[in-house]
Order: sequence, then structure tokens, then C-alpha cells
Amino acid sequence: MDNQPPVESTYSPHTDMAIEAHELARQAREIIRGVSEESEEVGDVRISRTHVMNKNGEREIGKRVGHYITLDVPKLRRRNPALQAEVSRLFAEELKRMADLKPDSKILVVGLGNEHVTPDALGPKVVERLFVTRHLFNYMPDALGEGFRTVSAVSPGVLGVTGIETSEIVEGIVENVQPDVVIAIDALASMSLNRVNASIQIADSGIHPGSGVGNHRKALNQETLGCKVFAVGVPTVVHAATIANDAMDLVLSQLDESVPGNETTKLFKNFNPQEKWKLVQELLEPLGNNLMVTPKEVDEFIDDTAEVLAKGLNMALHPAITAEEAAQVTH
Amino acid sequence: MDNQPPVESTYSPHTDMAIEAHELARQAREIIRGVSEESEEVGDVRISRTHVMNKNGEREIGKRVGHYITLDVPKLRRRNPALQAEVSRLFAEELKRMADLKPDSKILVVGLGNEHVTPDALGPKVVERLFVTRHLFNYMPDALGEGFRTVSAVSPGVLGVTGIETSEIVEGIVENVQPDVVIAIDALASMSLNRVNASIQIADSGIHPGSGVGNHRKALNQETLGCKVFAVGVPTVVHAATIANDAMDLVLSQLDESVPGNETTKLFKNFNPQEKWKLVQELLEPLGNNLMVTPKEVDEFIDDTAEVLAKGLNMALHPAITAEEAAQVTH
Amino acid sequence: MDNQPPVESTYSPHTDMAIEAHELARQAREIIRGVSEESEEVGDVRISRTHVMNKNGEREIGKRVGHYITLDVPKLRRRNPALQAEVSRLFAEELKRMADLKPDSKILVVGLGNEHVTPDALGPKVVERLFVTRHLFNYMPDALGEGFRTVSAVSPGVLGVTGIETSEIVEGIVENVQPDVVIAIDALASMSLNRVNASIQIADSGIHPGSGVGNHRKALNQETLGCKVFAVGVPTVVHAATIANDAMDLVLSQLDESVPGNETTKLFKNFNPQEKWKLVQELLEPLGNNLMVTPKEVDEFIDDTAEVLAKGLNMALHPAITAEEAAQVTH
Amino acid sequence: MDNQPPVESTYSPHTDMAIEAHELARQAREIIRGVSEESEEVGDVRISRTHVMNKNGEREIGKRVGHYITLDVPKLRRRNPALQAEVSRLFAEELKRMADLKPDSKILVVGLGNEHVTPDALGPKVVERLFVTRHLFNYMPDALGEGFRTVSAVSPGVLGVTGIETSEIVEGIVENVQPDVVIAIDALASMSLNRVNASIQIADSGIHPGSGVGNHRKALNQETLGCKVFAVGVPTVVHAATIANDAMDLVLSQLDESVPGNETTKLFKNFNPQEKWKLVQELLEPLGNNLMVTPKEVDEFIDDTAEVLAKGLNMALHPAITAEEAAQVTH
Repeated sequence: MDNQPPVESTYSPHTDMAIEAHELARQAREIIRGVSEESEEVGDVRISRTHVMNKNGEREIGKRVGHYITLDVPKLRRRNPALQAEVSRLFAEELKRMADLKPDSKILVVGLGNEHVTPDALGPKVVERLFVTRHLFNYMPDALGEGFRTVSAVSPGVLGVTGIETSEIVEGIVENVQPDVVIAIDALASMSLNRVNASIQIADSGIHPGSGVGNHRKALNQETLGCKVFAVGVPTVVHAATIANDAMDLVLSQLDESVPGNETTKLFKNFNPQEKWKLVQELLEPLGNNLMVTPKEVDEFIDDTAEVLAKGLNMALHPAITAEEAAQVTH
Repeated sequence: MDNQPPVESTYSPHTDMAIEAHELARQAREIIRGVSEESEEVGDVRISRTHVMNKNGEREIGKRVGHYITLDVPKLRRRNPALQAEVSRLFAEELKRMADLKPDSKILVVGLGNEHVTPDALGPKVVERLFVTRHLFNYMPDALGEGFRTVSAVSPGVLGVTGIETSEIVEGIVENVQPDVVIAIDALASMSLNRVNASIQIADSGIHPGSGVGNHRKALNQETLGCKVFAVGVPTVVHAATIANDAMDLVLSQLDESVPGNETTKLFKNFNPQEKWKLVQELLEPLGNNLMVTPKEVDEFIDDTAEVLAKGLNMALHPAITAEEAAQVTH
Repeated sequence: MDNQPPVESTYSPHTDMAIEAHELARQAREIIRGVSEESEEVGDVRISRTHVMNKNGEREIGKRVGHYITLDVPKLRRRNPALQAEVSRLFAEELKRMADLKPDSKILVVGLGNEHVTPDALGPKVVERLFVTRHLFNYMPDALGEGFRTVSAVSPGVLGVTGIETSEIVEGIVENVQPDVVIAIDALASMSLNRVNASIQIADSGIHPGSGVGNHRKALNQETLGCKVFAVGVPTVVHAATIANDAMDLVLSQLDESVPGNETTKLFKNFNPQEKWKLVQELLEPLGNNLMVTPKEVDEFIDDTAEVLAKGLNMALHPAITAEEAAQVTH
Repeated sequence: MDNQPPVESTYSPHTDMAIEAHELARQAREIIRGVSEESEEVGDVRISRTHVMNKNGEREIGKRVGHYITLDVPKLRRRNPALQAEVSRLFAEELKRMADLKPDSKILVVGLGNEHVTPDALGPKVVERLFVTRHLFNYMPDALGEGFRTVSAVSPGVLGVTGIETSEIVEGIVENVQPDVVIAIDALASMSLNRVNASIQIADSGIHPGSGVGNHRKALNQETLGCKVFAVGVPTVVHAATIANDAMDLVLSQLDESVPGNETTKLFKNFNPQEKWKLVQELLEPLGNNLMVTPKEVDEFIDDTAEVLAKGLNMALHPAITAEEAAQVTH
């Protein structure tokens, strides 16, 4: 039953962010039963917590039951080292609180995505910067002092088109490595250009089909992997369909303002969501629905974001690593 | 005078393809003075020749005086080795005819673009597959038999953000290498999703500011480099602004059909190009005008296209290389 | 019992090639019981077949019971496309004969080695050039005609230091992919500079601890993976210890010639293999025994060799692919 | 005249380090006229200063007139972040003192070497981590505050085999960029395994033919580039010929101890340097003299060393960057 497709409406823009799905749902109704949300500002960072509490909430916003934390940092794109360090720290704090690791928890970090497609390369780029220790614990048990956990990491997608599903690779590795916790890192699609390379989502509900820039076919979650799965993602693209849809809405709302009220009703009744979505499909048809919108400087943004996440993970997974040390061991 | 910005209207979608700029201009008037075009079908390939004959043509379509050949191959995206080989051959034929190389012409191939941003990596990927010979002629003059020209190649953009303009690097190299002909390879922006990774443009007018996915700041042409400069490009992206603009047009034309004639005039008069363009800017504002639309499988398309161009170049530049040998020496 | 270390003497140069291990053993005795060998010349290629027939042979030469085919092609380093094509063809022939695949055999190719260390990058570079089909058979069963087998491929070592053993990753994938046959590609250490980038070894005995440039810790063979495992390797390095040892031998043999017979005995009695090996260790001590000798142009050799192997594999695994097509689909 | 080959003896091991060339010369005579050297210990780092004062010194040790600073850090290979930070700091100090930059000096950093051959990739890997500013000063003069110099950087060798000499590319760029100072980074060959990835050499005499892992054909120095050229290098390989030569010496010295004195003279007279070198050539003949010895973990060492140099350069070139900030901006 858990393998059913996400509940998101077929006629609305796609988002991998629970906070946006919630926002979208609230455009129709102020309150969504089964979903709660609160947020706070910490300096330049807005931290929001979206809770999908039951199946009703899940159906309404199309995101699984679970907790979703969003760090929105509009200034992150300006490449400010001090702000980046602060975001690493806050991200580490939130991840630690959510994951509630034991001192001896064994963690496997999975970097999803294809390193050959720049906006999808976030996961692999985080993995290559992690401080992994599992081989040290196995072969030189005394090499590390207190405060280090057993961390291993894998980027199944750097393996390229291999004829093997990412989930098959991850399942096989989990069976052999037997981690207590899996943390999956992935590049996401947002509904809003404002969040591209400027937000981090942490979730305790795993990774689900159709999510991420690379659109996974199978879930990575407690059911499929047999252990807790946390998902960390950063939006790096917006779907072209979302942009097209927004452009149509913008034109229609402009018209709406300039046309006498009673005519509008008549005019726009053809443009229910299905109708509009049909126009979007028609527009993008030559290249199917697999079109991403991404800034030209995507390579620099991805490198910076990978650094921020990797530093945060190194701090969150190894209590012995301080913020200063994270800057040294992460590269 | 040649450094004036391209003449393309500020309120219309951007395209690096002369054939599209011509098409766009003809939406207003059937015939554009100073521009001629003819085309033919060769199997699955449509070959069009657009000639910008004088300054009037240049002003009208925003492309420099010169000859532009377009190979449109919609089936190229289906990854058919036989068709790819045929396109390499046709491309080599057209390039040879246009460049009119002497048996002892010295050629420098310049692969423009940033290898770290997948849709901009075409130039560097072509360069690394070329059969370069200049060092052989210099150090082992008898190593090669008849039918090979002196070919060198450089990818200035793989150097990343280095604080040096691409044109400064190319100018310096041209002064030292003293080629008779420069061939610049670049990833282009098209106005149409149909052409993405499915068309090749060859031009004898060089590379100009604002063209290409990476948007060059200075021209590479006869004036700046002191030798003939041919430009070879493949569209790998469409600007997000183009998609947004198309979406707006589509909605407006749908409305146009469903509304009684005389009301339309009133309704749409607000939506002149400038007005529409202001809406597009507003929509894309958070990430500026540097947004590209690109398919998710961009890495495979770029690899395939680079192979097609490199094989064609190896055949066009070295008469001794046959189609079979091009398949062997290109990798 | 099968996990015992290879039987190779501790005091002799290391080689991953059965033909060299046999040669070495025959320096002491003309005939090694349990090992047979025959060879033939095919144009510029010498094909040798070394059979380790029983445990005695295994003990004597330090290579597992099994069949080892060696293609020696001294001219391969001169980068001749015609010879490369011929070697691809011969390699495909030999691999097909040895592997004896059924029309519906499912094959997993494993590219061993670390892509970040040039001479160890052979496996990953072969994998990225393969024509993989498993995903096509799974999702579009009618996409391919007759003559294609289900091929998947993985390069576990591109992950670098991840805290996970290569064998753990491969075992996990094999459990999920359930191939009938595994073909492991690896860069090897030779005892002779003559074979570096100029020989191919095909074996039906799998991959064993301590073999390959990267020195695997666990075996990949029928016992550990539950299916037939063929190993394909090309020597890309010689151990520095081998070079040092050879240098000592050369000096001693020069001395031997220039010194009156009866004094030599006295002189050289200190230099039994153990003694000499101690000197080698002393010499290389600062960097341990992990020193490789490799030519400066290693990057070009590795690219060429990967191309030769990938073309051969594409032909051997897919009967429908001809030599001409292999040149087209391999890149 | 300056283009004459380096004066180093043809029959002795090759080294790119002045300190080793001096050491080698002193094996024959205690004092080398025209060369002076002093050294000091700073924690785990030994800093030596070798001064080649005149043409006599140049002839004797085969290194150009100039100053050579060597930082020997045997513990650097153990990957200790605190020690790495300290070495960055000391390197920055020494470079600043030698280069004596003005507040408004314009610097071009040239990363020599081939990124596709791991031990030769040091230069490109340093360049990609530098904080370059020239484009900021050109396009946004107010973006940076006090304490930043105009820095540009280029890695001509990442262009691979392009038919163009590295020196031709660098000369062309220097003509266009007009720097006051060039700093060239290169991977070196040492004579001693102890120094591999454990030493840094800084010199004010430029880069000369035959030096570096990639063996440049033309000089990069004041004469060829028209500005001061500093060279920064780290030994990443030992030539195989050096190892072979050392192995021969070791055997001979062992024999020397075990044979009665007067016989030795007779025995070893055949082994003058020329004779020994002939044996070395014979041994390595199949792959010519282009064989490098390098540790298997070369990728990790190169990454670490590039980080150390880049941090040091960022501090030395921009007075405004502190050690803490260098850790943030270098990646």
C-alpha cells in the first residue's frame, strides 16, 4: 500500500517541498486538517516545521506522514562564508534533534543523483566531502577517539546508466552494511524560484517515487530498507511546467484586473486546472515533461550548497567535530 | 563599430540561431529585405541556408552579415548510430564547402563553454575528441602522411572562473599559434524546444557578444582575431523567458479564439511585447534572466552531439580520414 | 579454505598475470606439474593459454585453478586504430569461447578500481563505455530486437574511500540483480614493463585478495557471489619493488660475468631471495610497499585500452553488434 | 643562451629540488662554490634556504641562479588538519617574504600539469581552489574592500594534448593580462621517496625545460614572460630510474662491506656512473625514460597538498584573508 504514487494532484505544479505543497493546498482552504506548521526566524534563516500528522494530511498535500523541517535562507545565494557557516550549524542542530542518534548509531549516507547533470549532482558532491569512518573502525579500531560514529557513504548514481535501479544498489548495500540509520541526500524540485539553492528540507519520511530531480522509481524508507531513513534535500531546479503554468496565471490575473467582472467569469471558465495543464503539456511536448529550469551559475551554487550540507553532516554525525574542525575536514 | 550589441529586439525571445531570428522577423512581414533563405531535405535531415546579405538584413533579424547553415535533425535525439554517422558526414560536407580550406591551412578549434555546467559543456567535449596534429608537425614532421592538416585545439572555458575573459585567452593563443582559420564550437540557446540537441548551425560570421549558453562578452571574429572565424553551434537550452513568453502567447491565443472579435482588441491592447516582457521579468526575477530550460537527460544528449561534431570535424579538417576511420580516432 | 592468501612466494616480485607466474616458476624447474601452457601467433598478437589444472599447480605458481588467456600485443602502445580494432575482435572471440554464454544469460559487468588514480581507472572507464540493456528489458521489453543480452554494469570503486568494501557493494548488487555471469574488469600489476598497457588477461577463476592495482581485500568468485565470475585485466603498472629487484639482479649478473668463477659463490651467497627482498624493503620503506611504476602518458594508454576492452565486450555480450557497430556504440 | 639545457649531469638521478641537487653535489666535495644553504626547524617543519649565487654554483648543481626555499614536513602524509593549517601559514609567510608584493601588484597564478594524470594534477587542483579577483576588479570595482589584490589564474595543461605548447598559451595570456608577477605551481620529481608529498619548494628563478612531472619544453621566466616568475612545487613522484639506480647502489655497497678491500677496487671499476646508467636504461627500456614511481594513495595526497598550497596562496596574495577565512574560501 505504501507504494502507491504520491497523492499530489496531477494538474498542479510539482514540488518536492512539503512546505510548498502545504502552501498550495491552503490556496483553496485556510486550514488543512492533518497538517500543522510553525516557523521562527533565526538571523537570516527562517526555520519552518511542517507536520503531516495523518492520512488525511497526506492526501491533502501529497506528502507522506512525517515531519518536515525547512530552512529558508534567501541570502545563501550571495556566497557569504559567515552565513554559510551559520547555516551548516543550524542544519546540524535540526538534523541532530530529528534523527536522535545514539552514541553508537551506525549511519549510512546515500548521495542520490547523477553527477554528470550539474543540478542533480548535489548528493554525490556531499558524499565526497564527508568524514567517513566505518573502514577505520573495522581495520584500526583504536585510530579514532571518543565522539566519532561509524559513518559510511555511497553515491549509487555516480555509477551512471548501468541498467540497475538506484534502489536495488542501495538495498544491497544496506543488507551488507547493516546501518541503524540511513540519511539520503538529494537535489529537489521547488515550485518557487525563490527557493532554488536557497533552502534545505530535512524529513523523517524517506524518499519516495517521483521525488528529486532524478525522479526515483522506488521508495527508500523504513519499509524498503528496514531502518529509519531521513531525507535531506535542497531545491536546485524548478520544473519548466511550473514556470509555464505561472506565466499563464500571471497573464490571466492581469487580464482579470483589466476586464469588467461579469465578463471574466465567462472568459476564464475554460481555464480550469486541467485545461491549463493541457496547454502546458502542448507547449513542452517536444521534450516531454522532463524539462528543468536552472540558473546558468548552477555549478557554483551546487558546490557551495554541497559544502554547507557536508559540514553540517560532519558536525551532526560526529560529536567530536567542532565547527572549526568541520571547515578543515570537509573538502 | 562592430562591438555594438546585437540588434535583436529587447522584447522578443532570445535565439542564437539565424534561421529562427529570420522566422521571427517574418511573423510581421513576409519578406525581410537583405535576408534570403533556401532549404532542402536530405533523408532525415533538413538543410537550410540563411544569408544575411547587408546591414539592413542584419538590423532586421539581429544576426551579423554572413552565411548561416542549419541542419535540423528531429530524430537525432533518439540516439540512432546510423543517423548520427550520416549527420557527421553531412556536417563535414557543409563545413568543408563553407570554410574552403587550402591543403596547408592551419586550423585552431576553440571549444567555448564551461565543462562544469552540463548544457554548456559541448565545446570542451568536442575538443577532447579531436585529432590534433600541430605538435606532430612541429616535432615529428614525417610522422603523418598526405592528407592531414595542422590542427590545434583549446578549451579556454574549462579553466572556470579564473578572472580572465575567454576572449583574452583566445587572442593570446591566436597570436602565438598563428592559425589561418579559427573554428569556434559553442552551445547555443534556441527559441524552440524542437531544436534542442537536434540542430547544428554553421556560420562564417564569428561569435558575438551575448551569444551562446555562456554569453560571451567580446567578439571572436576576423576583426578581433585577424583570421577567418567559423562558428559551429548546437542549441542545448531554451531560455526560461522564452518558455514563459510562449506560455503567455498560448493562453492569449486560446482566449482570442473563445472571445467575440471586437472585445479582443480592447482586451489585449495592454499586451504589447514590452508589457508582456515586463510580466516575464517579474516572473523570473528571483534568479534574474540567467535561467535555462534543459532536459533531464542533457548529459547523454551532450555526449552524443559532441561525438557527432567531433567526427565531422575530424573528417572535414583531415581529407585523409574516412568516415570509418573517424569512428575509430574520435573518442 | 578458499580464502587463504595467494600462494605466491613472499620473496619474489608480484604479478597478477598467470603467464608470468608460470614463467617465474619455470626459472627454477623446466616443468611445473599441474600447469600447462600453449600459445599461437595471430598477426601482431600472441595468444597464450595457461591452465592451472590442480592444487599442485596452484601452489607452485600462486594462481588459482582455472584457465588464463593472455593476449600480448607489444605494438598496442603505438596507438594504431586498425590494430586496436583487431585486438577488440580477438578479445571478444576469446571471451565468448571461455564464458560460453546462453542466448538469455544475464550479465553483470563490474568495473573495479579507483577512477581518481589514473592507472587504476581502467575498470570504471570500461563500464562507462558499455552498451547496457537491463533497464531497457525491464521497462521497454520490445525496444531491442534479437541478439541482445541483459547487461548491467557497475563501478563500485568510483566511490573512493566510503567506508564500504568493494566486495560488500558487489555482493549486495548481485543479490538484487541476480546475474548468471559476472565479468570483473581490473587494472593489473605486471612483472614486466613489456606488458604494461600491451597485454590482456582473461580468466575464469574470479578476482582474489591482493590482486589488481587497488589490491582487493575479499574475493569475487563463484563461492562469494554464487555465479560464474570471469576476470578481465590489463597490466597498467609494475610494482616499484619489482623494478628495484630487477635492478639488483642486473648488477649482480653483470658482476657475475666479470668475476672469476670460484669467488662468485662466496660473494653472492648473502644474496638469497630473502636477503635481496630485505634490501628492496629498506629502499622503498618511506612509502611502504604501495609504490607503482607507471609511464607518464598513462592517461592516453588507459583511455585507449578501455576503448579496446569496451568494444570487445559490446561484441561478445551482444551477438547483434558487429565490429562496425561496436565502433559506433562504444564511447 | 638561457635556453641551454639544465646543467645537471646526465649520469645521475634527476631531481627538481635544488636542495637535493646540492646534496648530491656535496657527495663528491664538502663545499660547492657559488652555493650556500642554511636551515632551521619550526615545529614539525624544517625550512632550508639554498642560494645559487653565481654561474659556477649553477653549473655545479644544475639549478639556475636564484633562491630556493624548501619546507620539509615528513608528517604531512599523515593527514593531520592542524599540521596542514600550520604548513599553509608557514608557506604563505615564506612566499610573501620572497615575492615582496606591492599592495597593488597584479598576480597571475599558472597551474601547470595534466589533470588526467593523478600525480601531475597538482597545479590544476590548486588553481581551482584559489580566490581569484581580477574579474571583480574589472566589472565591479567596489565589490571588494581593502586588502585584496588583483589575482587571475589559469591551468593551461587541463587542455590536454591540444597541439599547443603550454608556454605558448601562457605567453599569450601574459601579453593580454599584463600581470606584475607570475606564480607557477607544478608537481615535481624528487630524488628521495622521503620527500614525496611531504615537501614544498619555492623558487624565484622560474620554471625551466625538463623540470616538473610533465617535463616542460620551454622556460617560463623573466626573459620569456617579461615579469618576475616564482615557482612553487611539491614532489609527487620519483623517477623509476632513480629507484633502479638506488637499488644498484645498495647492492654494491652491501657487497663492498662483505668483500676484502683490495678486491673491491677491481670488482667495481666497471661500475662508474655511465656504466650504471647504461644498465638502468637497459632495464627500463621497454617504456623509455618516462617512468614515474608514485604511491597508490596518490589521489588523496594530491588533494591534501593542493588544499595546503591554495590556502597558503589565498593568505599570501590577499592580506585581508586570515587563516580562518582561508579555510572557508578555499574549496
